[in-house]
Amino acid sequence: MTAHDTWPQTTGTPLDAEGARLIDAWFRAANYLSVGQIYLLDNPLLREEFTVDDVKPRLLGHWGTTPGLNFLYAHFNRAIAQRGLDALYITGPGHGGPGLVANTYLEGTYTEVYPTVTRDTAGLGRLFKQFSFPGGIPSHVAPETPGSIHEGGELGYALSHAYGAVFDNPNLLAFTVVGDGEAETGPLATSWHSNKFVNTATDGVVLPVLHLNGYKIANPTVLARIPESELADLMRGYGHEPFFFTGGFDDEDPLETHQRFAAVLDEALDAIARIKAQPEGKDAPRPVWPMIVFRTPKGWTGPEEVDGKRTEGSWRSHQVPLASARDTPEHLQQLKDWLLSYRPEELFDADGALLPEIAAQAPQGERRMSANPVTNGGLVLAGLKLPDFRDHAVDVEEPGATVSEATRTLGAWLRDVVAANPTTFRIFGPDETASNRLQDVYEVTDKQWNAEFHDTDDDDHLDVSGRVMEMLSEHQCQGWLEGYLLTGRHGMMSSYEAFIHIVDSMFNQHAKWLKVTNQIEWRRPIASLNYLLSSHVWRQDHNGFSHQDPGFIDHVVNKKSEIIRVYLPPDTNTLLSTFDHCLRSRQYVNVVVAGKQPNPNWLSMEEAIKHCTRGLGIWHWAGTESDGDDPDVVLGCAGDIPTIEVLAAAKILREAIPELKVRVVNVVDLMRLQDADEHPHGLTSREFDTYFTPDRPVVFAYHGYPWLIHRLTYRRTGHANLHVRGFKEEGTTTTPFDMVMRNDLDRYHLVMDVIDRVPSLGSRYANLRQYMADQRIMCRQYAYTHGIDHPEVNDWVWGDGGDSTESVVAGTQGTGGDNE
Amino acid sequence: MTAHDTWPQTTGTPLDAEGARLIDAWFRAANYLSVGQIYLLDNPLLREEFTVDDVKPRLLGHWGTTPGLNFLYAHFNRAIAQRGLDALYITGPGHGGPGLVANTYLEGTYTEVYPTVTRDTAGLGRLFKQFSFPGGIPSHVAPETPGSIHEGGELGYALSHAYGAVFDNPNLLAFTVVGDGEAETGPLATSWHSNKFVNTATDGVVLPVLHLNGYKIANPTVLARIPESELADLMRGYGHEPFFFTGGFDDEDPLETHQRFAAVLDEALDAIARIKAQPEGKDAPRPVWPMIVFRTPKGWTGPEEVDGKRTEGSWRSHQVPLASARDTPEHLQQLKDWLLSYRPEELFDADGALLPEIAAQAPQGERRMSANPVTNGGLVLAGLKLPDFRDHAVDVEEPGATVSEATRTLGAWLRDVVAANPTTFRIFGPDETASNRLQDVYEVTDKQWNAEFHDTDDDDHLDVSGRVMEMLSEHQCQGWLEGYLLTGRHGMMSSYEAFIHIVDSMFNQHAKWLKVTNQIEWRRPIASLNYLLSSHVWRQDHNGFSHQDPGFIDHVVNKKSEIIRVYLPPDTNTLLSTFDHCLRSRQYVNVVVAGKQPNPNWLSMEEAIKHCTRGLGIWHWAGTESDGDDPDVVLGCAGDIPTIEVLAAAKILREAIPELKVRVVNVVDLMRLQDADEHPHGLTSREFDTYFTPDRPVVFAYHGYPWLIHRLTYRRTGHANLHVRGFKEEGTTTTPFDMVMRNDLDRYHLVMDVIDRVPSLGSRYANLRQYMADQRIMCRQYAYTHGIDHPEVNDWVWGDGGDSTESVVAGTQGTGGDNE
Repeated sequence: MTAHDTWPQTTGTPLDAEGARLIDAWFRAANYLSVGQIYLLDNPLLREEFTVDDVKPRLLGHWGTTPGLNFLYAHFNRAIAQRGLDALYITGPGHGGPGLVANTYLEGTYTEVYPTVTRDTAGLGRLFKQFSFPGGIPSHVAPETPGSIHEGGELGYALSHAYGAVFDNPNLLAFTVVGDGEAETGPLATSWHSNKFVNTATDGVVLPVLHLNGYKIANPTVLARIPESELADLMRGYGHEPFFFTGGFDDEDPLETHQRFAAVLDEALDAIARIKAQPEGKDAPRPVWPMIVFRTPKGWTGPEEVDGKRTEGSWRSHQVPLASARDTPEHLQQLKDWLLSYRPEELFDADGALLPEIAAQAPQGERRMSANPVTNGGLVLAGLKLPDFRDHAVDVEEPGATVSEATRTLGAWLRDVVAANPTTFRIFGPDETASNRLQDVYEVTDKQWNAEFHDTDDDDHLDVSGRVMEMLSEHQCQGWLEGYLLTGRHGMMSSYEAFIHIVDSMFNQHAKWLKVTNQIEWRRPIASLNYLLSSHVWRQDHNGFSHQDPGFIDHVVNKKSEIIRVYLPPDTNTLLSTFDHCLRSRQYVNVVVAGKQPNPNWLSMEEAIKHCTRGLGIWHWAGTESDGDDPDVVLGCAGDIPTIEVLAAAKILREAIPELKVRVVNVVDLMRLQDADEHPHGLTSREFDTYFTPDRPVVFAYHGYPWLIHRLTYRRTGHANLHVRGFKEEGTTTTPFDMVMRNDLDRYHLVMDVIDRVPSLGSRYANLRQYMADQRIMCRQYAYTHGIDHPEVNDWVWGDGGDSTESVVAGTQGTGGDNE
Repeated sequence: MTAHDTWPQTTGTPLDAEGARLIDAWFRAANYLSVGQIYLLDNPLLREEFTVDDVKPRLLGHWGTTPGLNFLYAHFNRAIAQRGLDALYITGPGHGGPGLVANTYLEGTYTEVYPTVTRDTAGLGRLFKQFSFPGGIPSHVAPETPGSIHEGGELGYALSHAYGAVFDNPNLLAFTVVGDGEAETGPLATSWHSNKFVNTATDGVVLPVLHLNGYKIANPTVLARIPESELADLMRGYGHEPFFFTGGFDDEDPLETHQRFAAVLDEALDAIARIKAQPEGKDAPRPVWPMIVFRTPKGWTGPEEVDGKRTEGSWRSHQVPLASARDTPEHLQQLKDWLLSYRPEELFDADGALLPEIAAQAPQGERRMSANPVTNGGLVLAGLKLPDFRDHAVDVEEPGATVSEATRTLGAWLRDVVAANPTTFRIFGPDETASNRLQDVYEVTDKQWNAEFHDTDDDDHLDVSGRVMEMLSEHQCQGWLEGYLLTGRHGMMSSYEAFIHIVDSMFNQHAKWLKVTNQIEWRRPIASLNYLLSSHVWRQDHNGFSHQDPGFIDHVVNKKSEIIRVYLPPDTNTLLSTFDHCLRSRQYVNVVVAGKQPNPNWLSMEEAIKHCTRGLGIWHWAGTESDGDDPDVVLGCAGDIPTIEVLAAAKILREAIPELKVRVVNVVDLMRLQDADEHPHGLTSREFDTYFTPDRPVVFAYHGYPWLIHRLTYRRTGHANLHVRGFKEEGTTTTPFDMVMRNDLDRYHLVMDVIDRVPSLGSRYANLRQYMADQRIMCRQYAYTHGIDHPEVNDWVWGDGGDSTESVVAGTQGTGGDNE
């Protein structure tokens, strides 16, 4: 590895008096616009008489964090312009929406994307009115805000988003403001360690600014109430060199404050430039990146007191300090004084446009943080070069004739994807890439790591650069991946199915982001977020009940149907076809559940592609219906393990009740079950009946909680005949087959369900039913005695069993103690 | 505040040679039993010829972390015995199940709770066979493990559980082992800051031991790969004094290792004793509590190499180092050598019982960590003293005649609950107790805080002791609360409805714990976990889309019905009645969704109690049906806002279509909608039809995602006639009424739904339908122009409106810019 030599090496020059005056003017302008957005309905520059009618009837917004964000924005702009930096701004305290909107307006970007919000008095009026107003814009930093890749809703992900953005963007600097409230969250607390996973040469730089304004909604913050020495220890412990800055207290001359901060920022940026100029590699020490502790008063420059209570510098500034500005003349006057304290007449010309000398402070064009193309990821997104997945097809001469590990084959294809896309595709996961059988990717890449290396083979596949990102924090992995996708790249995340719930709320926020950006014209589509859940509920028999939870699917389907896709490929070839589709898609969240254990292959690649394209299909070879007739019963299945059990049940039925006409329907694309008017992939009612019949009993074996199938199909004609088996929250450490038995999803129970539900069978098959029940008892007893499943369930044969060496489905529910 | 003078002040004495020998014997015995559990099916003491048949066919378990846990257990026992400590053991690396089971067996507790696992050879055989075996016990530390309050599944909560356990247990010491994998998770990374929320005098002590064994499944850990000085900085930054210990490397004599660690542990415990002896209060500095960094090899004392690969001290020890012990004679021999390396003949007598001198190392009775009563919380649980909630009833002479904020009234009652239960009830929440209108509790208590205080009124209600726990981390709050409940106390958590998803996965684990403990005879029921979600989806119009998500209810109802309860009280008196019920309950998770905004009161306290007892009810006063007849349409509602809209719709219908027989059914207890055989609270089919009719159209206005109502009712006779309105993921920053309109939940749309669904109305009411549609447009236009809702929706009158000063429901969807 060599030094990264394209990072601007300019060093900072002290801020002179005129520079300080101009930067202060920007700061005042941004503050003025922020207060204006929160309070003003009209009369934006107060050039007419100020009355209660100029004040919004409903005051919504967060002032407290805003001035600090504005101050930083102004200073970052100076640094960008002076040093020629390529930068973006991540607003951890995203409640400070008015501040970010104000700055992007001052930079001109806002008017470029929203032309009606002109740079004059009328435009200012629109800018102010629309904020937090019905039909207007949200109160937080949002997808609507140019330059944002980070919604100001849920807190905790500023740093992981920032690191995600700079991966593979070696010239990019992410100025990242971390609120001291947010800093108390778990995800943020661990995300500081991202600096052990960033590569000095091939990735960009995150400059964290811990904004210590001291208060949350109603409480002081922890980090503001520990000694500065302790905070410095904490930052050093996180691997950073902290630069401390305190400003805005004790009536300091603002120009002095600006000069002091400019010097601190220059120091930090000089340190970054020095690190970027150094050689880098496994033998070079991990750099100690700078960070800034920025202590300013909450609600800085706002009312010092309201109704005799301290407001500036207190939690009382958190939201709207003058909440009753319309109701009392005193508050109205105080609001007016506050607005005028920014001396708007020195900032805006007669038409309401920002004075040119102040506007000239901003960087130009795409160097404006609000116009950096990476913040509108779709702009810079290039499609992945996808090698032909058909080259990795497993051989399937007849159904069940071969066995393979679906994710292992996927891993071989992903290896080729990685190789073909060396800077635009990454794989994220807590610690499971190899355990999920994707280890073939290590033939062409490594796990990126920048902490200490040991000179043993334990450190295999660890390197300072690599496409695989593993840290034992689902939050971190998800946050990195989101940042990576939002800046126009591709990726996937693998996780235990049970523990992907850890990021339920992060998924929510990302799904909401996608939903909203679909409605914003200037936002371009980004690559989908792809989840691979391969350590799934049915094969966590070794880890036990805590690891058994298929509810993430239920969680995701609550979000807007146009962005949600759920796939349950039943075997290797269908997984390959599915994943290729996912990696080509845009603006979705794709959830793919596919096991990593040896599993029979049912479909040839040609069949698999057809099956995946349809999303579901009748497996004629597995059923016993004759052409033209409706079957007596439909066996539905979705998921690899349910498919095995359904096919085993179909075989028992074929042999034991040959006259029974059975249809087997396998579902890959779960959303096909919904109504066509509920989901873009949904079947029409007529199509649905073509598969499941309008009136025959359907016994459906489903991977997850059974009621989801009911929820998806409750409007279907034949819904009353639908009987679903799935995970009903019964689990423990046991054998694989005992797991399906505990949840009545096993083949024997499915046969019993068929007997119970097909009236024509009457009581003629009471003996068969009893035999099935006895089989269950026998299997359980065997497992409880021997610790493994009965060979009968491991070695069952699909087809006629004539050539057992070829067609034995051995080991599919086998003894393999998979232990991860 | 005064010094806490009951903490044992004994200081440690150096470990002598005999002590070291005995502690090593315990360590070897625990290791032997751990290996035995993972591998052996029979021949537990290897006193017969060792063959492959003695080895389990399926090897499941985690060896890597286990020896370190065993080592620590032995040393903690010495300290407990020597100092008379009252302690428990929290196993962050809960995969090390065999270790904890081993130690509790050595202490005798295991045999006390599972009498068939005797302290002899036969018992050892049972102990070994049952581990990770079908019908046996889980592979991780689990509810089945005596002394555990912390499931070894999902990682990240060891410290928050530990702090939860020691709150209000001033003499309790929680030895808390944090794995270095777990330490990478977000929740764990922030939970170190718990030391700013613990009270030296009135709470107990957590001694964290960071177990740095270097590896996860397939990766090194971050904290093991930063310089020791950086790790020391990190721990100091977290407010701890770190004590470093490294042992088990370079063939050190084990006796020497024991002596060195005993000295380190003594130092740490002496430091704790000194802190506990110091005066404490607001003016005293926050103590710097000790913690221990415990660096030992992963898989310590296990095979150094397997198949030529380094195993001890590597990630290859994570699970089962000799995975093919049954398959090769070499591995079988290696396993035998490994087992015999612990010299079992020096540990167990001829009958297989632990030698008395070794057994005598353990503390006695309840001082054994495995038998500490707090670890079986139900044992020490006392019911809350609950003041009569009826004393807080709001006056409701007629429905809608008064308005109140439900949670504010609840807060007044909670104040009395706090006062009556000064050491057994706490309120947890990220930063919202006051914002959720529970501030009356501050009349009798404070927010507990032990970081710096400022001498301003910003620090109101902050004190070194208090019943309210606020940190901006839902993980931390949930973890503390779980620890508090699991050790036999009571509590509640309040959160934004949207962001309670942050703890989805923690909820899962707690729900699973409750489900399993219901089946363990010796585990006594603990108090329910109560969620109050008062900043809910319909009143986050000011915070916008990111804050709008009612899906937590969907998430919880996936768990076992016997432990899940969901309540949607429509007004103040019903909330009081509901919460009283929740605080009396055991072994449930109660989710209560109730708004904090001014809301009309519908039911008197007497009516509210009846209504809550039934869980749902026909509100005859709101409908127009006559006795005996079935209605033409049923309007169902669940949730405070849907109830308002349904009642407003009912009023419109009453006035516009007086001949239409309308029934209004309000649902408080959502689980009543399920079948009686699906949920203990479920209605029978006949009961359900009594409320909702078998055949009339039902228009149901629901608080959350509408499909949940379909899921709960899909088996009901009249399900095909059920039409549900709810949140369909449409939101932004807007007005409250615009929010319900965006989701078609508003009164006007409900009236349109009724017209569309009651065939007898035919086309006669096309004009009314159009008028409703026009009202919607008018309301939206008004909001978009004025920024507030039209007065018509704010000032609507329930009843005949005759006495408007009494019955105007003013402000219920009002202008109040609630901004938190």
